[in-house]
Amino acid sequence: MKLSQKQIDFMQVFAKSCRRSILKMVSGAQSGHPGGSLSSLDYLVTLYLGRLCETNEPVIVSHGHISPAVYSVLGELGVFDKERAIEHFRKPDDIFEGHINRKVPGIFYGTGPLGTGGSVGCGYAIAEKLSGGADRRVFVLMGDGEQQEGQVYEMMNFAVGHHLENLTLFIDYNQVQLSDALSEIMPTNIEGHYKAAGWNTILCDGHDFADMWNAIEAASLIKDRPTVIIGNTVMGKGVDFMEIAGKNLKSDWHGKPPKKEDAEKSLEASTLSEEEEKVLAEGLKSLKINIDASFDPESVKVNVGSPRTYEANVMTDCRSAYGAALTDLAGLNQNILALTADLADSVKTDGVKKNFPERHIECGIAEQHMISTAGGLSLNGFVPFASTFGAFMTSRAKDQARVNDINETNVKMVATHCGLSVGEDGPTHQAIDDISSFEGFMHTQILEPADPNQCDRMIRYVASHYGNFYVRMGRSKTPVILNGTADLSKMGEPFFAGDYEFKPGKADIVRVGTRATLVASGAMLPYALKAAEEIASDGKGDIEVICVSSFVPFDSETITASARKTGRVVTVHDHNVRTGLGKYVIGALFEAGVQVPLKQLGVYEYQLSGTADALYEKAGMSTKHIVTALKELIG
Amino acid sequence: MKLSQKQIDFMQVFAKSCRRSILKMVSGAQSGHPGGSLSSLDYLVTLYLGRLCETNEPVIVSHGHISPAVYSVLGELGVFDKERAIEHFRKPDDIFEGHINRKVPGIFYGTGPLGTGGSVGCGYAIAEKLSGGADRRVFVLMGDGEQQEGQVYEMMNFAVGHHLENLTLFIDYNQVQLSDALSEIMPTNIEGHYKAAGWNTILCDGHDFADMWNAIEAASLIKDRPTVIIGNTVMGKGVDFMEIAGKNLKSDWHGKPPKKEDAEKSLEASTLSEEEEKVLAEGLKSLKINIDASFDPESVKVNVGSPRTYEANVMTDCRSAYGAALTDLAGLNQNILALTADLADSVKTDGVKKNFPERHIECGIAEQHMISTAGGLSLNGFVPFASTFGAFMTSRAKDQARVNDINETNVKMVATHCGLSVGEDGPTHQAIDDISSFEGFMHTQILEPADPNQCDRMIRYVASHYGNFYVRMGRSKTPVILNGTADLSKMGEPFFAGDYEFKPGKADIVRVGTRATLVASGAMLPYALKAAEEIASDGKGDIEVICVSSFVPFDSETITASARKTGRVVTVHDHNVRTGLGKYVIGALFEAGVQVPLKQLGVYEYQLSGTADALYEKAGMSTKHIVTALKELIG
Repeated sequence: MKLSQKQIDFMQVFAKSCRRSILKMVSGAQSGHPGGSLSSLDYLVTLYLGRLCETNEPVIVSHGHISPAVYSVLGELGVFDKERAIEHFRKPDDIFEGHINRKVPGIFYGTGPLGTGGSVGCGYAIAEKLSGGADRRVFVLMGDGEQQEGQVYEMMNFAVGHHLENLTLFIDYNQVQLSDALSEIMPTNIEGHYKAAGWNTILCDGHDFADMWNAIEAASLIKDRPTVIIGNTVMGKGVDFMEIAGKNLKSDWHGKPPKKEDAEKSLEASTLSEEEEKVLAEGLKSLKINIDASFDPESVKVNVGSPRTYEANVMTDCRSAYGAALTDLAGLNQNILALTADLADSVKTDGVKKNFPERHIECGIAEQHMISTAGGLSLNGFVPFASTFGAFMTSRAKDQARVNDINETNVKMVATHCGLSVGEDGPTHQAIDDISSFEGFMHTQILEPADPNQCDRMIRYVASHYGNFYVRMGRSKTPVILNGTADLSKMGEPFFAGDYEFKPGKADIVRVGTRATLVASGAMLPYALKAAEEIASDGKGDIEVICVSSFVPFDSETITASARKTGRVVTVHDHNVRTGLGKYVIGALFEAGVQVPLKQLGVYEYQLSGTADALYEKAGMSTKHIVTALKELIG
Repeated sequence: MKLSQKQIDFMQVFAKSCRRSILKMVSGAQSGHPGGSLSSLDYLVTLYLGRLCETNEPVIVSHGHISPAVYSVLGELGVFDKERAIEHFRKPDDIFEGHINRKVPGIFYGTGPLGTGGSVGCGYAIAEKLSGGADRRVFVLMGDGEQQEGQVYEMMNFAVGHHLENLTLFIDYNQVQLSDALSEIMPTNIEGHYKAAGWNTILCDGHDFADMWNAIEAASLIKDRPTVIIGNTVMGKGVDFMEIAGKNLKSDWHGKPPKKEDAEKSLEASTLSEEEEKVLAEGLKSLKINIDASFDPESVKVNVGSPRTYEANVMTDCRSAYGAALTDLAGLNQNILALTADLADSVKTDGVKKNFPERHIECGIAEQHMISTAGGLSLNGFVPFASTFGAFMTSRAKDQARVNDINETNVKMVATHCGLSVGEDGPTHQAIDDISSFEGFMHTQILEPADPNQCDRMIRYVASHYGNFYVRMGRSKTPVILNGTADLSKMGEPFFAGDYEFKPGKADIVRVGTRATLVASGAMLPYALKAAEEIASDGKGDIEVICVSSFVPFDSETITASARKTGRVVTVHDHNVRTGLGKYVIGALFEAGVQVPLKQLGVYEYQLSGTADALYEKAGMSTKHIVTALKELIG
C-alpha cells in the first residue's frame, strides 16, 4: 500500500516537530550528535508512523549516538514525556543518555560502540522466526561510517546464511563520518558488499517519505533473503546551517552542538503554524500507539531437569559434561539455544545440533557477531548458550560481551579450552587472561567447574537464573572429584553429586585440614588433592583443600575462615597469576585483616605447545610444585 | 617470466618431500592440522622457491595452524634443522608449536586466532612503501574459513583505501573449515567481497605450480590496488586417505592427526626415488637462500627531543599534551607513525596528520585492523602510536593486542576518553575496565598520566623504549599538578617538570604527610590533592598523596613504605574498583605484610551521562567523598 498525501503531510509536520526537539536537546546539553540525528530522522518517522506504532515490531538502532532522533520520535509519540527528554538529555539526573539505552521506554537494545546493532537485530529476527511470528519483521538502523566495522560484515553473511528475510536494515548514507567524509576516511563500497553477501538492496531518498515507505513495503515482499535500504541523506538535514551535502562534505556537525543563539534562531524560524499544529494533533490522534520494548526477566522459565552424575571411575572432560547438560536442557525447554562459531564438536554443542538442529545456531568464524546475536535472542525470552574457546570469547568478542553487560542481557557464555589445559595448540589458544578480561563487567558472573559433576550442576543453575554468565573450563579430561576427609560418611562418593547444590559465591571445602589452606580452581583441583595426599602420607599433616568455582561473586568467608585456622595459604590456578584466583584470595584476606604467608602457583609466562601435564610441569603448577610450595610454608 | 619445466619438476619433488615432513609431524605429535597444511603447501612452495628464498620479502601466514606446512618448507630449505622440527613439533621442549610463532626462524609474525594476518601484512606493506622498497612485495596467506572474521573485511577495505598494490594475498580455497564444509557452516562469497572492496582478483589452481606462479607474476604488474589470488585446493592434498574434494566435503582432516600406522603406510609409499632425491638436491643447490625474518629491537632508535612544560596556570587535557608530544616526536624521527580509527581530532593525532600526513595512517572505524597493522609496522622498525577511545581499544581490539603481545611487538596504544572523565557520552564510552582487559598480557606495560607534564614525559619515554605500552588517559581538561609539601624549595612549580623523569614502576609522592596515605591516579589526582588540602585546613593533619602512573609494572615499595608510616590508606581511581588501582595497592600491601585499614573509591556501577564532575559526584569519587573517606579513617 502506498502512503496517502494525508499521511505524508502528517509525517512532514511530525518530523518538523522532532527536528525542533533534536535541536533543543543538543543545544540544551551543549553536547551530542545533531548531524546524524537529523539525517536519520525521516526514516525513523516513516517507520514508526507507517508501521511500528501499531505493530510494535522490534527496531534496533545501531548508531546509538543518534539518540536525539530516537528520543524525539518516542517523545512525540508520548512513549515518555517529550519535555523531560529535552530537558534532561545527557544530564546526570535522568535516563536520557548520550547513546540510547534500554532504560528509556521504547528502546529495545542500547548501543554506542559501532557495528553491533545489526547482529543484535539478527538475534531478534531469529527469535521472531523461532516464535512463529511469520509476518512480523525486525528493523535495524545503522550509520554509514559504522559499515567499516568488521562485525557488520559478519552480520551480512550471517543474515543471508540464515535466510533472515524478515530483517530490514536501513543505512543512513549521509556520506560523512565523525572526522571527515567517508570518501576521505575509508572509501567503502557499502552496496557492493551487501550485494556480494547476497542481500536484496534498495536505494532510496532518505528524506522522501513515500520513497522510503515503498522501500519498506518492497522489502516485506522478499521471501528468501534480508533487505538493506540505503537511504541517500543529508547530514544536518532541516537545520539550514547544519546541512552538509554535495561536494563539500565536512564532518562539522557530526558530534558538535550548535551555539545556543544559533539554535534559538533556527527554532524561532521553524515554529509550527496553527495549521501544522492541527495536522500534528489529528495525526497523533489517529494512531493506535502500541510501543512497548520492555522485557521481564521473570518471564524466562527453565526446567533444569535432574542432574547427571558421573561416577568415581569416569574420566571425562568438563566440556562433554557441559554438552550433555545442555542437550538435556534443550530437550526440556524450547527456549534453550546453542550458538557456536565453527566449533560445535570441540565445544560440545553438537548434541543440540544433532537433536534440535533448529535451535543450534551456527555463526561461522565470527565470534563478535555470535555474542551480539545471543544478546538479542536473550531479550526475546530465549536462553542462548554461546560457546567457543576461551581465548576467542574473552578477546575477540570482548566488546560485544561488554555491550551485552551494559544491556543486562541473559547470555550464557560457556568457553572451553581455557588455560594450559588446551595443550598443544599453544599460547594463542591458551586463555590465561580470560577472567580479568570480563572481570570489570557489572552484570556478568564468572564461574569455573572443577569436574563433570560440578559442571553439570553449574550449567543447570546458569540456565535457570537470569543474567549474563561466563563459564570457563579446560579442554583435557579430568577425574571425578571424590569425597574424602570432608565428609567421611560419603567417603569415595562423587563430591559434587548427591545433595550437592551449586551456588555462585560459594566455595567448597573438599578436604579438611589444619596445617595449611590450599585453594584450587577448575582443572587444578585434582592436582591439589594429590598434593594434599602426598603431604599427609609424608606425615606432614592435613592440608585443607578449598575449591573455588565462582570468581564473581567470590566467597571470601570460607577462604578467610580457613586461612585464619591454618595460618598459611597456597593457591593454584590454570590462569595468569597476575589476575587469577590468587588475586581474589589476597583481596579477601586483606579485607578481612587476615595476614598469612601465601604462595601463588599459576601461569607466569606464555607457554608453548605440549600436553597439559607437560605444560603444568614447565609452568611450575604440577602436583610436585604444589607439594614443594606447601612444604616451604609448613616447614 | 614463466617457470621452466626444470623448476616445476623441482617444486614437485620439494613439495613431495614437504608432505612427508608434514605427515611425520602430525603423526609424531598425534596432534595438529594436516588438512590445511597439505592444501596450502603447493602455494608456499611456489612462493618460496620461485621468489622468497632470494628476495627475503615478508610473508605472513594468517592461518597459523598450518604450521606443519610452514615448518616443512623452512626446514627443507635449511633455515633450521628439518629433523628437529619433525621430532619436536608440538612438544613442550622446543619452539615448534602448534601455531606458527616468531621464535621459529623464518617466521615474521606468529598467528593463531583467525583473521589477523591480513592486517599485519598491511602493516608490512605500508612499511615497505614508507621505506621506499619500490619493487619489494609483501605476501599474505590465509585460509578460506577465516574469511568469515570481520577483521578480514576491515583489512579488505583498508588495503584498497591505502593503495597497497604491493600486497599479494593468497586464499587457500579448500572449501572446508574446522567443523564442516564452508557451504554448510557459513556460505561466504569470498571473491565477491574482494571485488566489491576493489581488489584485483585472480582465480587459479592451487596445486598447479605454473598457474600459481603466473598469478604471482600477474599480481606484480598491477600498480593501483592489492591482489588476491584465490587458489582452488584440495584439503589433505597428496595423502590419499586425507584428500577431501568434490561433493563430499567433510572436515575430518582439518584438525585431526592420522593413525600412526596409516601415516607410516603413506610415508612408505611416498619415499623419494633416487632420481627424485637428485632433483631435490640439485634444486636446493641452485637456490640462493637468503631467508631472515629476525628483527632486532635494539635497531629502533628514537630521539625524544626536549620535553614541553605546561606552566601552573595552564588548564588542558592530557590528550592534547599527548598530541603535542607525538607531533614533536614525529618531527624528530622518521620512524614515528600515528594510527587512528576515525578519531584524529578527538585523540589528538591531528598534529601528525597536518604536519606529516604520510605518516598518519587513517584506518577508518576498524580498531581491530588498526592494532594488528600497528603490530606489523612495529616489526619493521617503525614506532606506531595507535589511538582511539579506551573503551574501543581494550574491548574491540583486545584480541589483536593480545596477539601482538604474544609476538612481543612494539606498539604504543594510547587511549583517550577513559573513565567517567568521558562525561556525556555515557557508559558504552566510559572505559572503566580497560586496565584489567590488558592486565593479563605478559609483554605490555600499562600507564596513566596525571597531568599534561607527566603525559608529555611519559609519551617520550614510551616512544623510546621498545615494547608494547597501553597508556590510558581521560577526556576532560585537568590542572597542572604543582609542587607543594613534597619539595618546598620548588613550591608552586609544576611537579612533573624540571628534573622530573618518568619511569614505569615508579610512584611519586606528590604531597608529604603522616596521617594517612591517599593513592590516586590520572584524572583523580587533583581531586585527591584538594581533599588533602581540606583535611589540612581542617586541622586534621597532613595526608600523604601518592600518584600512581604505572600499573604494570607497579611500585609496591613506595606505597607500602607510606602505608607503614601512616597506618591507613585511601585509594581513588577513575576505573572500576574491582580491577583498578585499589587492587594493585592491596596486592602490594598484602605481599609486604602491611595490614592497614583501606578504603577504595572508584566506579562501582555504570554511570549514565553528565559532566565528569557530575559523574564523580554521583559515583562517590569527588573531593567531598575523598575527604569523608579520609576522615572516617583518621577519626
